[in-house]
Amino acid sequence: MQNFTFVNPVKIVFGKGVISQLNALIDPKAKILLTYGGGSIKKNGIYKQVKAALKKRKVVEFGGIEPNPSYETCLKAIEFGRKNKVDFILAVGGGSVLDGSKLIAAGIPYKGKNIWDIVKSYGSIVKATIPMGTVLTLPATGSEMNAFGVISKLSTKEKLAFGNPLCFPKFSILDPQTTYSLDKKQLRNGIVDTFVHVAEQYATKDLNTPLQDRYAEAILKTLVDVAPAVISGKKNYDARANFMWCATQALNGTLACGVQQDWSTHGIGHEMTAFFGLAHAETLAIVLPAVWKYELKNKSAKLAKLAENVWGIKKGTKIQKANAAIKHTVKFFNSLGMPTLLKKYNITPNDCDVIVKRAAEKKWNISENQNIDSKALRKIFQMCK
Amino acid sequence: MQNFTFVNPVKIVFGKGVISQLNALIDPKAKILLTYGGGSIKKNGIYKQVKAALKKRKVVEFGGIEPNPSYETCLKAIEFGRKNKVDFILAVGGGSVLDGSKLIAAGIPYKGKNIWDIVKSYGSIVKATIPMGTVLTLPATGSEMNAFGVISKLSTKEKLAFGNPLCFPKFSILDPQTTYSLDKKQLRNGIVDTFVHVAEQYATKDLNTPLQDRYAEAILKTLVDVAPAVISGKKNYDARANFMWCATQALNGTLACGVQQDWSTHGIGHEMTAFFGLAHAETLAIVLPAVWKYELKNKSAKLAKLAENVWGIKKGTKIQKANAAIKHTVKFFNSLGMPTLLKKYNITPNDCDVIVKRAAEKKWNISENQNIDSKALRKIFQMCK
Repeated sequence: MQNFTFVNPVKIVFGKGVISQLNALIDPKAKILLTYGGGSIKKNGIYKQVKAALKKRKVVEFGGIEPNPSYETCLKAIEFGRKNKVDFILAVGGGSVLDGSKLIAAGIPYKGKNIWDIVKSYGSIVKATIPMGTVLTLPATGSEMNAFGVISKLSTKEKLAFGNPLCFPKFSILDPQTTYSLDKKQLRNGIVDTFVHVAEQYATKDLNTPLQDRYAEAILKTLVDVAPAVISGKKNYDARANFMWCATQALNGTLACGVQQDWSTHGIGHEMTAFFGLAHAETLAIVLPAVWKYELKNKSAKLAKLAENVWGIKKGTKIQKANAAIKHTVKFFNSLGMPTLLKKYNITPNDCDVIVKRAAEKKWNISENQNIDSKALRKIFQMCK
Repeated sequence: MQNFTFVNPVKIVFGKGVISQLNALIDPKAKILLTYGGGSIKKNGIYKQVKAALKKRKVVEFGGIEPNPSYETCLKAIEFGRKNKVDFILAVGGGSVLDGSKLIAAGIPYKGKNIWDIVKSYGSIVKATIPMGTVLTLPATGSEMNAFGVISKLSTKEKLAFGNPLCFPKFSILDPQTTYSLDKKQLRNGIVDTFVHVAEQYATKDLNTPLQDRYAEAILKTLVDVAPAVISGKKNYDARANFMWCATQALNGTLACGVQQDWSTHGIGHEMTAFFGLAHAETLAIVLPAVWKYELKNKSAKLAKLAENVWGIKKGTKIQKANAAIKHTVKFFNSLGMPTLLKKYNITPNDCDVIVKRAAEKKWNISENQNIDSKALRKIFQMCK
């Protein structure tokens, strides 16, 4: 096991009807900036529940934070928040609203000239944030219980992650019932995103971390078990609750304790969203199997373990099991209606040369083995076609 | 799944040599009260490491916190801490030192006349604490990552748990190497204590919480796997690290999310320590199998799951599997050299009448089914003989 530091102060309030507990969680004196997305919360009743819970508080609103939240939109929200002198942010929505709100929370008190520096420095220059709470409506990114956000700068087609301990939400409210109005694509994306978060903290080198490995397998097995009931679209409370808790647990730091991590699938996927506009989970479902194929030998011990403990494959050599793990994972993604090949989006490996070029400029050497450079990336895109 | 609230702000610093990081974790201006136990830290070099890490800080020391920390000793430490105007407590030791230090941390700023009221109110009257950090040397109680403590009042033979969110340590330093000097009895007790912490959050009613159940099974399976290497006494770093992380994870609130809990084995065990002086884990190893036998039908679904997923028993009816789970658990405890019967300590069920009497006075109705009253308790002690 590697040495590690773990801390996660986020308060989770989970269950049926818990939005009603919102008011008590926020400083009574706070002037609240309520942030949300494209307005679905107004159609599905969540906005109404939030407003009812907040009673007669001082609230100003900023809607329109888009999927893959843009730097440009966040800038407007920061200006709006400064003008209104808000001192608490309540983000209501999915991972995009939460991620965008983290930049807004860091941006409002930021003294520097260029807010993009926050993202460009990966969050390291953040010295203060406005406190923030969330009401999660889409289980997927884990943003509700971590200190990270991913922001897209439209003008330069960049999509970058940033993080800082000051960006942890003070609380997150998770009512599985809020997921009832999600469509199948959103649910599918959430399941795949969660799966890949676990995978990137698991399918690396085996460093004798049996508890962390079993935790990871626990999330994956539970996801696989509940996926059919979730994706069916039926209002199955327990299935939604178990899915929602899996998504939060997948990226709250617990799985990362003492293990080697590999965020190359995310890194490559972010570029594909930036250049081609694919949804985050859509990129992951294409890239993960290809990265695993490319790193088959390096990852074989853990992939074989995945095959055994998640997919129930007990026979074969280590490499055969590792290959079977990839096959079963692809099959699982496909069973959710999730494509795993570039061609399904009419994208060719050649189209991905823009990403290869950027990887060369940035001198990428990603993956836990630091062996995915621009040349390797070209090969990986060939495996995605 | 039941509704739940989860929060745990403790910073964990885990690994080889991490005591050296101590100084940076404490406010430079703090006057530190260093608390410890019977002095083993002076023999095994941990005291030296801590003092070296603290450099030239203002430190006063209070040693002699005994196993099952006594109220009487804590009172002396509180007086000492007040006199020395300390504003940080650094607890170095096992769960007893940490538990006692939590009462000291709550007691120093306490305005009331009678400090026992803190324990008697189960911690609910705590309004302030001195901040506290820990260096853990004995994996067992989970106290390093929770807000609870258990205190024994010698004068009245009471042993009670208390807790308050203000009692969370600010940080806990876990270096698995600190466990090398533990003797087999301490290691055995730590393994059993950890096992029973998990069991009391798992072997209740099945409320469709597959992720939490798999987490619990993950800890139990890992414990069972590493136990022989740990108990051998050899300096096997990974075995110690995995054991240490299991013990912390077993009682940091994660397993309790959304499930039904049953702390009756602990409740009964505390009385046995108070009256007979048995070590905490020794009481648990006797009581747990008896409580499970008494509650066999109520707990059969989860006990059968335990049999299947931890002990690998795939055949038999639900009740047969539940019985097998008890048998295998007893066998595991015995394999560590841990007795599971009263007679090994020359105690008879009749001797336990003092506990039955107290249960009647306190009108016990413990267990998740609230069906263990004094009469049931008498039957349970018969099952322990």
